[in-house]
Amino acid sequence: MAISKGPQAFPRTEFLRRLSAVKSEMAKREIDALIVNNSSNITYLTGYTARSGYVPQGLLVSRHEEEPTFILRRQDAPAAIHQTFLNRGKVIGYPETLIGNPDKDGFDAVIDCLHELGLASRGLGLELGYLSAQSAEKFKARMPNARIVDCSKAVAEIRSIKSDLEIVIMREAAAIADAAIMRAAEVIRPGVREADVMAEIAATLARGANGKPGTDFASMFFCSSPRTGTCHIRWSDDIIRDGSQVNLELGGVRHGYVAAIMRTFSVGAPSDRLRRLHEAELAGLEVALNAVQPGATCSDVANAFYRTIEKCGFKKDSRCGYAIGIDWTEPTASLKDGDMTELKTNMTFHLMLGNWIDEDFGYVISETFRVTESGVEVLTSAPRKLFEL
Amino acid sequence: MAISKGPQAFPRTEFLRRLSAVKSEMAKREIDALIVNNSSNITYLTGYTARSGYVPQGLLVSRHEEEPTFILRRQDAPAAIHQTFLNRGKVIGYPETLIGNPDKDGFDAVIDCLHELGLASRGLGLELGYLSAQSAEKFKARMPNARIVDCSKAVAEIRSIKSDLEIVIMREAAAIADAAIMRAAEVIRPGVREADVMAEIAATLARGANGKPGTDFASMFFCSSPRTGTCHIRWSDDIIRDGSQVNLELGGVRHGYVAAIMRTFSVGAPSDRLRRLHEAELAGLEVALNAVQPGATCSDVANAFYRTIEKCGFKKDSRCGYAIGIDWTEPTASLKDGDMTELKTNMTFHLMLGNWIDEDFGYVISETFRVTESGVEVLTSAPRKLFEL
Repeated sequence: MAISKGPQAFPRTEFLRRLSAVKSEMAKREIDALIVNNSSNITYLTGYTARSGYVPQGLLVSRHEEEPTFILRRQDAPAAIHQTFLNRGKVIGYPETLIGNPDKDGFDAVIDCLHELGLASRGLGLELGYLSAQSAEKFKARMPNARIVDCSKAVAEIRSIKSDLEIVIMREAAAIADAAIMRAAEVIRPGVREADVMAEIAATLARGANGKPGTDFASMFFCSSPRTGTCHIRWSDDIIRDGSQVNLELGGVRHGYVAAIMRTFSVGAPSDRLRRLHEAELAGLEVALNAVQPGATCSDVANAFYRTIEKCGFKKDSRCGYAIGIDWTEPTASLKDGDMTELKTNMTFHLMLGNWIDEDFGYVISETFRVTESGVEVLTSAPRKLFEL
Repeated sequence: MAISKGPQAFPRTEFLRRLSAVKSEMAKREIDALIVNNSSNITYLTGYTARSGYVPQGLLVSRHEEEPTFILRRQDAPAAIHQTFLNRGKVIGYPETLIGNPDKDGFDAVIDCLHELGLASRGLGLELGYLSAQSAEKFKARMPNARIVDCSKAVAEIRSIKSDLEIVIMREAAAIADAAIMRAAEVIRPGVREADVMAEIAATLARGANGKPGTDFASMFFCSSPRTGTCHIRWSDDIIRDGSQVNLELGGVRHGYVAAIMRTFSVGAPSDRLRRLHEAELAGLEVALNAVQPGATCSDVANAFYRTIEKCGFKKDSRCGYAIGIDWTEPTASLKDGDMTELKTNMTFHLMLGNWIDEDFGYVISETFRVTESGVEVLTSAPRKLFEL
C-alpha cells in the first residue's frame, strides 16, 4: 500500500519560496537544471532528513518545473514520499542493482533522468565541492554537450538567511542543547566513566526539551584532561578524576536544524590559568555579541572578540565561529578577521570561542545566535560560566 | 606542554603490517606516494578516530618512509599525536588561516608537503571516490607533472581481511549492539515516545557491555508504523501505539569498528503477514550463514538466502549485506547475486536482510559475522526472534 505523508516541519509555501530563490540564482547563472547532492541542501529544499546520502542521490531542480524531482535509491523512496512536501510522482526510486555495482551507480540514474527531460545539452549546475571526482567525471563523460557550472555554495548562500519558521525550529534545538549541558553538569563527577556521562548527554539530546524531542544526534565532543588541547575527540575509555577539566561541545537537533553550544567544566577548583582564560573569553564573548547588528561584518564581530582577549594576554588562532543551520556548519560566512560578509536579520551563527592554546590545554565556550533587526538574540541559554563541580 | 600519547587500541606492529600491505599495493600500481583522505582509511592506518574530517586532511603514505605523515588542521594535531602510533614529527598541523578561506584550504598544505618531499612529479595515488571534484582539480592544477592514479578502494581492499586483534575489537562492538537491542525490547511500549526509546538505546550504546564502553555512536534507525517500509529515518516525533511495529537498526562501536544488528519488534500480536515474513527471513538467515565458508563466494551466500525466501513466497530486491568494519560499510564486497568475491578467513560482513516489501511494510533482521577457517562465527547474539512486546 502507499505510504502516508507524515507531518511536515514546514508548509509547502516555505519550500516553494526556497526553491524560487534557487531558481532565481539559476537564472543568473544561466543554467536550466541543478543537481543538488549535498544532504543538507536536500533537507532545505524538501524536508527530507533520512540518512540515505551514503549512496548516490540527487535532487533535480529544473527552472521549468515548480517542484524538483528527487532521484534516490528505491528502498529510500518511501521515506522521501513520507517526509517531504513533494508530490509522489516527483520521487523516483532507482533500482537496487545500482548498489554495490562496480560499473554503474545512482548517479547514472540521475543522468538518465536529465537525458529524458531534455536537460542533457544545456547549462547544468553541479555541486562540485560535494560530488566526488569520480562522479563528476561520470557527469562530464555521459553529458558531453552540457555546460557544467559549479554551484557548490549556491543553495548554502540562500540558506544563510533563515525564515521566521526556521528560527522557531532553531530555538527548539537550542533548548535541547541547553538541557544537555545542564545534564552534563549533574553527572560529571570524579570516578564516573566518560562513556556514562555521554550516555546521559545523548539521552537528554534525544528526549529533548519543552515537550519537543530531539530528532537526531549531532556531533558531540567530550575532551577531558589530558585532552583539553584537542577539539574533536568523541570521548575516551577513561574515567573522570579529581582535578579533571572537561571541554564539552554538542548540538541539539530539530528536523535537521542544529543549535550548538560549548561549555567547560572543572572537577574541583580550576587552576588560576583556566580561570583567567575563562574570564577573558567571557568578556570577549560579551563584546562580540554586542557587536552583532545588521550591517556589521563577520570581521567586526571577530575582531571585537580578538581585541578583548588580547587585552587580557590571550590569543586565539582559529576563527570565532561560522554560519550554522542544517546539519551544523554552513560553508559560507566565518566569524574571522577579513570576512566582510555583512550581517543580515535572521542570519544564525555559532559564536565558537574554543581556544586550544597548548597541546595539552584548551578551553571552550560558545553560543548560537541570531542577528535581529536591531542586534542579537542568543538562542542558547545555559549559564555562561565555568562550571565548577 | 606536549600532549601525552593515549592508550592505543593496537600495537605499532599492527599498523606497520597494515602499512606494509598498502606499500606493496602502491608498488604494484607504480606510485611513490598515496594521499589517504577517507576517514575510515586514516583510522585503519593510524588509529586516529577524532572527527575532524569535515575539513581537508590527508595521510601521506610514502613508499620511502616507514611511517606516514598526517597533515591536518593545526587545532586537530594534538588529537593526532595523542591517538595515533605516529611519531610526533609525523603529525603536521596546517594553519587556521586555511579554514573558511575562499582561496586556499588544507589540501594546499598537503600539496605543499608533496612538493617539499620531492613527490610532486611522480606517480601519486588519490582517493578520487572520496575527494571532491574541486579538490581533485586542485591536485591536478598544482601538480601538473604528477601521474595521478585512482586508489579509491586500495586501502579498503586491504581492510577487508581483519587481523585477530581487529576481530577482538569487533566482538566487543557486537556485544554493545546486542545490549542496545535488549534495552530496546525493555522500553518499546505503547504510549512511549520514540525519542524516549532512542534515549535509552543511545545511552546503552555509550555505556557499552562487559566493562567496555562504546567509543562513538554509529547510525541508528527506528522505523515504526506507518514507516516500516522505510529504512533510513532516524526516528520520529511520534509515540508508540498498540499494534505498532518497529524496525530497528543500530551498531555498537569500539575504536572506530562497528558491529551492526537489526531486529523487528511487534507491539501486540504480529499480523499473519509479518509472522510469515519473519519465518521466511529467519530460515533464509540460517541457510545463508550455513553457506559461509572460505572459498564460497558472496554470491553463494546471497543466493542461499534468496532461494530460501522465494520458496516461502517472498522476494528481496536489495543486496543481502556487505563487508563491515571501520565506520560500518566497507565499499568492497556485497552479498549479492553475481558478486564473485571469494570469502576468506577473518572477512567480516553485515548479513543485512532488511526487506522493504511495500511502501508501508517492511521487516528487518541482520547479524554481523566473521568467516572462520571452517565456517562462520556470528558476532552479534541477540535472540534471533520477532520480539513481541
